[in-house]
Amino acid sequence: MNSDAQRENAIHDLGFAQVDLDRPRRRGMPEVIFCAGKTPDQIIGIIGAMKQAGQNVLGTRMSPEQFQAISRAIPEAAYHETARCLTLEVAPRPPAAGHVAVVCAGTSDLPVAEEAALTAEWMGARVEVIRDVGVAGLHRLFKHLDTLRRARAVVVVAGMEGALPSVIGGLIDRPIIAVPTSVGYGTHFAGLAPLLAMLNSCAPGITVVNIDNGFGAGAAAALINRIGEPA
Amino acid sequence: MNSDAQRENAIHDLGFAQVDLDRPRRRGMPEVIFCAGKTPDQIIGIIGAMKQAGQNVLGTRMSPEQFQAISRAIPEAAYHETARCLTLEVAPRPPAAGHVAVVCAGTSDLPVAEEAALTAEWMGARVEVIRDVGVAGLHRLFKHLDTLRRARAVVVVAGMEGALPSVIGGLIDRPIIAVPTSVGYGTHFAGLAPLLAMLNSCAPGITVVNIDNGFGAGAAAALINRIGEPA
Amino acid sequence: MNSDAQRENAIHDLGFAQVDLDRPRRRGMPEVIFCAGKTPDQIIGIIGAMKQAGQNVLGTRMSPEQFQAISRAIPEAAYHETARCLTLEVAPRPPAAGHVAVVCAGTSDLPVAEEAALTAEWMGARVEVIRDVGVAGLHRLFKHLDTLRRARAVVVVAGMEGALPSVIGGLIDRPIIAVPTSVGYGTHFAGLAPLLAMLNSCAPGITVVNIDNGFGAGAAAALINRIGEPA
Amino acid sequence: MNSDAQRENAIHDLGFAQVDLDRPRRRGMPEVIFCAGKTPDQIIGIIGAMKQAGQNVLGTRMSPEQFQAISRAIPEAAYHETARCLTLEVAPRPPAAGHVAVVCAGTSDLPVAEEAALTAEWMGARVEVIRDVGVAGLHRLFKHLDTLRRARAVVVVAGMEGALPSVIGGLIDRPIIAVPTSVGYGTHFAGLAPLLAMLNSCAPGITVVNIDNGFGAGAAAALINRIGEPA
Amino acid sequence: MNSDAQRENAIHDLGFAQVDLDRPRRRGMPEVIFCAGKTPDQIIGIIGAMKQAGQNVLGTRMSPEQFQAISRAIPEAAYHETARCLTLEVAPRPPAAGHVAVVCAGTSDLPVAEEAALTAEWMGARVEVIRDVGVAGLHRLFKHLDTLRRARAVVVVAGMEGALPSVIGGLIDRPIIAVPTSVGYGTHFAGLAPLLAMLNSCAPGITVVNIDNGFGAGAAAALINRIGEPA
Amino acid sequence: MNSDAQRENAIHDLGFAQVDLDRPRRRGMPEVIFCAGKTPDQIIGIIGAMKQAGQNVLGTRMSPEQFQAISRAIPEAAYHETARCLTLEVAPRPPAAGHVAVVCAGTSDLPVAEEAALTAEWMGARVEVIRDVGVAGLHRLFKHLDTLRRARAVVVVAGMEGALPSVIGGLIDRPIIAVPTSVGYGTHFAGLAPLLAMLNSCAPGITVVNIDNGFGAGAAAALINRIGEPA
Amino acid sequence: MNSDAQRENAIHDLGFAQVDLDRPRRRGMPEVIFCAGKTPDQIIGIIGAMKQAGQNVLGTRMSPEQFQAISRAIPEAAYHETARCLTLEVAPRPPAAGHVAVVCAGTSDLPVAEEAALTAEWMGARVEVIRDVGVAGLHRLFKHLDTLRRARAVVVVAGMEGALPSVIGGLIDRPIIAVPTSVGYGTHFAGLAPLLAMLNSCAPGITVVNIDNGFGAGAAAALINRIGEPA
Amino acid sequence: MNSDAQRENAIHDLGFAQVDLDRPRRRGMPEVIFCAGKTPDQIIGIIGAMKQAGQNVLGTRMSPEQFQAISRAIPEAAYHETARCLTLEVAPRPPAAGHVAVVCAGTSDLPVAEEAALTAEWMGARVEVIRDVGVAGLHRLFKHLDTLRRARAVVVVAGMEGALPSVIGGLIDRPIIAVPTSVGYGTHFAGLAPLLAMLNSCAPGITVVNIDNGFGAGAAAALINRIGEPA
Repeated sequence: MNSDAQRENAIHDLGFAQVDLDRPRRRGMPEVIFCAGKTPDQIIGIIGAMKQAGQNVLGTRMSPEQFQAISRAIPEAAYHETARCLTLEVAPRPPAAGHVAVVCAGTSDLPVAEEAALTAEWMGARVEVIRDVGVAGLHRLFKHLDTLRRARAVVVVAGMEGALPSVIGGLIDRPIIAVPTSVGYGTHFAGLAPLLAMLNSCAPGITVVNIDNGFGAGAAAALINRIGEPA
Repeated sequence: MNSDAQRENAIHDLGFAQVDLDRPRRRGMPEVIFCAGKTPDQIIGIIGAMKQAGQNVLGTRMSPEQFQAISRAIPEAAYHETARCLTLEVAPRPPAAGHVAVVCAGTSDLPVAEEAALTAEWMGARVEVIRDVGVAGLHRLFKHLDTLRRARAVVVVAGMEGALPSVIGGLIDRPIIAVPTSVGYGTHFAGLAPLLAMLNSCAPGITVVNIDNGFGAGAAAALINRIGEPA
Repeated sequence: MNSDAQRENAIHDLGFAQVDLDRPRRRGMPEVIFCAGKTPDQIIGIIGAMKQAGQNVLGTRMSPEQFQAISRAIPEAAYHETARCLTLEVAPRPPAAGHVAVVCAGTSDLPVAEEAALTAEWMGARVEVIRDVGVAGLHRLFKHLDTLRRARAVVVVAGMEGALPSVIGGLIDRPIIAVPTSVGYGTHFAGLAPLLAMLNSCAPGITVVNIDNGFGAGAAAALINRIGEPA
Repeated sequence: MNSDAQRENAIHDLGFAQVDLDRPRRRGMPEVIFCAGKTPDQIIGIIGAMKQAGQNVLGTRMSPEQFQAISRAIPEAAYHETARCLTLEVAPRPPAAGHVAVVCAGTSDLPVAEEAALTAEWMGARVEVIRDVGVAGLHRLFKHLDTLRRARAVVVVAGMEGALPSVIGGLIDRPIIAVPTSVGYGTHFAGLAPLLAMLNSCAPGITVVNIDNGFGAGAAAALINRIGEPA
Repeated sequence: MNSDAQRENAIHDLGFAQVDLDRPRRRGMPEVIFCAGKTPDQIIGIIGAMKQAGQNVLGTRMSPEQFQAISRAIPEAAYHETARCLTLEVAPRPPAAGHVAVVCAGTSDLPVAEEAALTAEWMGARVEVIRDVGVAGLHRLFKHLDTLRRARAVVVVAGMEGALPSVIGGLIDRPIIAVPTSVGYGTHFAGLAPLLAMLNSCAPGITVVNIDNGFGAGAAAALINRIGEPA
Repeated sequence: MNSDAQRENAIHDLGFAQVDLDRPRRRGMPEVIFCAGKTPDQIIGIIGAMKQAGQNVLGTRMSPEQFQAISRAIPEAAYHETARCLTLEVAPRPPAAGHVAVVCAGTSDLPVAEEAALTAEWMGARVEVIRDVGVAGLHRLFKHLDTLRRARAVVVVAGMEGALPSVIGGLIDRPIIAVPTSVGYGTHFAGLAPLLAMLNSCAPGITVVNIDNGFGAGAAAALINRIGEPA
Repeated sequence: MNSDAQRENAIHDLGFAQVDLDRPRRRGMPEVIFCAGKTPDQIIGIIGAMKQAGQNVLGTRMSPEQFQAISRAIPEAAYHETARCLTLEVAPRPPAAGHVAVVCAGTSDLPVAEEAALTAEWMGARVEVIRDVGVAGLHRLFKHLDTLRRARAVVVVAGMEGALPSVIGGLIDRPIIAVPTSVGYGTHFAGLAPLLAMLNSCAPGITVVNIDNGFGAGAAAALINRIGEPA
Repeated sequence: MNSDAQRENAIHDLGFAQVDLDRPRRRGMPEVIFCAGKTPDQIIGIIGAMKQAGQNVLGTRMSPEQFQAISRAIPEAAYHETARCLTLEVAPRPPAAGHVAVVCAGTSDLPVAEEAALTAEWMGARVEVIRDVGVAGLHRLFKHLDTLRRARAVVVVAGMEGALPSVIGGLIDRPIIAVPTSVGYGTHFAGLAPLLAMLNSCAPGITVVNIDNGFGAGAAAALINRIGEPA
């Protein structure tokens, strides 16, 4: 079959990694590099293969130390400190379309929220971030309701008891993606408490991603955002 | 020591049970009978010992079948169906004092909420119950804020994601006792999800009791209520 | 404030339940009745309040026994046996718009898949269900790829090891909602195994709902589907 | 609505944080700063906003390193080493009223107990701390019974098997707040063992907070203490 | 080797079971029949083989229904209802020696305590059972301290929070075997709460057996009891 | 591609199920029917499709009630009571080749062991079953060592503490597949205890299948057995 | 009461700790110092109080760093490196009596085994340690059977799958105390795997202590050993 | 018995370790040294004993620091960096026979895969390693199907959701050994997610080893490989 051949040609074999250059066709986005546990040399190799193929690059969970080593080899790469991400713009991105909202419950949840926002932007969405609006002071949330009701998708990032998605879910009619964070202690069990809360939300239509997975939430929001674009 | 002797005399030995008749002096309330797993005859024996000592009786987790058998022997006992409790009034109760609020998130949480309310009343508190005010429709809660702000203690009963205590905790300055219920499915793990949420609440001053433990929450609220009574 | 008053008027107080008739305005859908643990009389009461307000009714987790009792009082209600749901059409539904795909890994996962499909339909989406396409025989899946690639959202229902969403996630660029089911034994832990697999999927953009929560997945898919509708 | 406006004005927007200056009115206490994971600059910003609003400051989970950096900017702040807390007195505190007892099972539980004591004091209670009275030598506890029986609320801090609250709960008629600590090893699971013990106590009326949450227990005790104050 | 041959001869092959008749020589006690999940015919077969070998029989976890079927075939067998055990005395037992104490926290823990007591007796110990002396009323326990201090081993059976072994462990210098029971609800997790408490006891020298394992505790106590016998 | 077409033709679409008739070619064995949770009509439909394709049938986890209903429609099907399996021989089976040993620790583990044995036989292996040789009486095991050392693969089925595979693993040089069973109580957690023991065995080369998964172990053993066959 | 007064006098109040000098009378052994998490100064204070009272000292979980600081103040204290313990002999110890065996499965379990051995010796037992006799090579164990059969109590220390106590339990008639260790990885869960195995042992009469709790096992063995001493 | 004597002679007693030199006879392979937690001196001692007995050496979980210290004493030892293993060839190895395939899902899983490959080779198998073929890009896997179908055993190493073994299991008829890795975050729980997925695979005949246990998988594959060798 034709597309089989296409797919096989679209693998860049680095020995330690088979870079899947066919992703944009199948998945609508290039492969994203999960940098935790990879050496700078491995990451540089993968970026090189993608650059050569004309694909934009997003690297997540990258430490400042990793970036320092990489930027010596690839000086045009940009680092996003709070989000702990690298981006490299190779191809022009389509003009930013409809918007996605990212809501962050507490100050300590910001790195995860920023990863979500950056990912959604990288995939072509406009993003508005709303910070520090936890349920212990709901009035801080209420003043942003209009922004939330106009968004195509809403990412809600929360640690502690993870109640914020349920509260927002009772107020708007947009798809909501909840992200539990590992911010807490004791019976928080590094994110298990808000994860369970989010999976058991009494507000219908909330979906959930892995603990601290801002990237996954941003990607899902961007895919939903595209549903609203003119074909 | 004198009180040692008092205490030893205050044990009624039924063989299978040592009824602790010294409780009112030490704990400010008679022993309460946890009926799950006890035979009607055992319960009748314990009630008999307490009645003889002039103590009021509260039996929790009592099935209708247990009550039927018991009421043949003790016809003056009363059954509270939703709360699944038996009461028997032997001594006159002090006039009901300050009030306690019991808030119930969903219809299915009612048995636990009613157990809490009945317990607090039995221990001398006036009680107001607020039903079906889950976080997916917060306006149902807001119209009861004044009642909550005037209460000496507030019991909040919730299953699902257990977010209600956090929301209330952000709005009032009263002691809050949160009760997770086993109402849910899947990752609810029979109450673990709301328990963890409540233990990790971002609203300070919320305390928690065991899953479905309406009795414990009602008892704690009643003890707090007494702190506000004139000595 | 005006909308506060609207919301308060929109509560139908049944004593045991505060029916939230304001949902369609806030959430774009009426309140849905979770029937497990409710008595037929409670359900009949809630349906009555909604009918009177001109709102369509969906009741989930309804047993055949519950339906039998209810249909005597409300003969125009319909029962969907595999999905274990009741529907009652009061208001005309908008013409079915873009489509949602529901993929079901194994025969035993069908009730959850049908609940998802029914919910999405009830909320205005066209739905295509693809049955019994587990990963142990991938060719059964491949022949449906076109349907999946044209859907606005894809719900993937799987028990056992829950690998199907990852495989589909590697092949299409649509939002995917994964539903773990409790079908399995031993270390399946009643759905925990596929839940964890889905939360850790290496395919970006997959979101997850609670174990056996076909309703939640269907609702999320329908909300996404609406994003694609002309405003 | 008037109070809505009040609330919105009472948010101090620092970008990364929305300081909720309306808390004293709603909750009877200013916002408390959870310092773990915040930078000194973030903390200094929040303290500045509170100070400007005339509110007393309590910062919990603060490391000596954090304090050193902060005290250069805010030299009037005080550090409490065992409790790992910062306080800054801006407004005069009301004269200390009724008393709260804090009981500590073992030497290693002291930091949590001191955090509870400091919090309760900061919220206006007099506090008595009773140290190292674990259940393996009950006579150490018995000599403090009078202090416990006169307290308005009793905080019991225990690691290991967490049996102390049950023993005290059998001896007094005061509200008891149990705090499990992470002190232990092996099947202690960093506090899970005493947490479960406390939630399952056979002494009625005991409530529980998160593992190591001395702050939450102290806040709850102080709220209860206020119930006993003349209005 | 000689003893190898002895051992091989000492196996009675029933097809479904290899009855190990060499146990008294190696282990100082005959094989004990765990009856849960065995058919009456299987149990009758095993008893027959043991009887023929002149060995006393103990069957644990036997339901009344199982016993009824078995007693038709083996009328001389005795049933112990609370302990849910069968015994059959084939060989004369040695005169009862030193004593073992079995302490039972609550009425609902009795079946487990009785199983422990019966087992220890069957293995040659004198046993004293102390009932219903939970930690919520310690004075009930204190009057039995002399009995406990004279015992060669003490079995402590407790559900709920499992605090009783720690309290007793602080008062006596005898080996203590703690048995958690499955009596409780919610976060009791069918015995996990008291198991963890017992494993983390601050009183040194306490050892623990499986949840509800009265048989194992009784056997351990009897083995310890024999250490004190004149050789 | 040719084999793609083959595969697509080899799906028998029953609506509720897509019977994968291509399995013998890809997997060396027909699809096996997991009967738990399927209706007799569904099972009859699947058997019919396989029979028509000339494939032998194995149905696992079949209750006697299910078999009764099925045998009315398919009288030539055979039921294996202990193993809870149905077989239907359509095609002649190859002559039984090398042998596989199935070792069963206790009488209660027999159903799982028999399922493993039947599966391995159905896939063409000769099987020897060794029963009731738990580690508490090792001499019962030692007399079977020669059988174990001659087997091409050894399946070891054990509940309780799951120690048997480790002991056998220290004595022979054959591939060992360990099957934990759900036989036990309390901290056995329905098979978790032996599963963990088997996964942590100090004897190298032991592999493990799901709790109670006799079928999987038998299939793995049969696949290994074939490796030893002349090509 | 007289002994009450004795007990109260027997508390040495250090502020941070109430040293319980009454232990030898009640428990037959002085208080033992758990050093993890204590400062050298706290430990020195406690040792000083015990020394002054003429009591022998055992400190467990002591790091070399802690010992170095302490030995400057108390040069006569001895350090046991593998067992990570400090001892200080103040009073003459009774002549060593009957013996206890400590069996160690693997080289990495040695620190826990040595802690058990040292504790039992410190409490007056003779001890024999048997090293590196894991179940993967049983013949290493068999040559020590006579030592085990003559011991008054046997401590068995094992990590990995924790099968050794079951194997020994099938061979001897002595009380066995099993100690799981945290030696392992992955599903070992830091000792949970052998803990569960030991709690579910099919050999009756085995009791268990917390993970890595060599001290507790040694103390229990020593208490049993005393049962065999002439009164 | 003769072989008993052989076995006892075959123990090399190093005090801290009893090196089991009888393993090649019983198990078909020498003892393998698990180096984590052992001192270089202990490892050197064990290697010395094996070398003297003419046995090849494999040491797993060895850090570069350990190797550096060891290679000074034993310069002929080789270090395998990715696999973190030491080998020392003392006896000539048999010519490599049939082959085993090792499949690795992601780049971060490589250390575990290399450990498996090295172990299988050390035990006499030829090995082919296939890298970075995760399920999110299945076409990368498909081009290796022939290699997999010709292998005598296939080891599949995967972290994240662990879906790869199921997909391969649906395509080939060879014994498959699945190895979950600890590569992931959040609800991955350090390997629990893929472990559960692998144990619940819908593809029959897959067996599983402990998380990160490349050694065990390689050993099992090598034992299977030998089944195919001419006797």
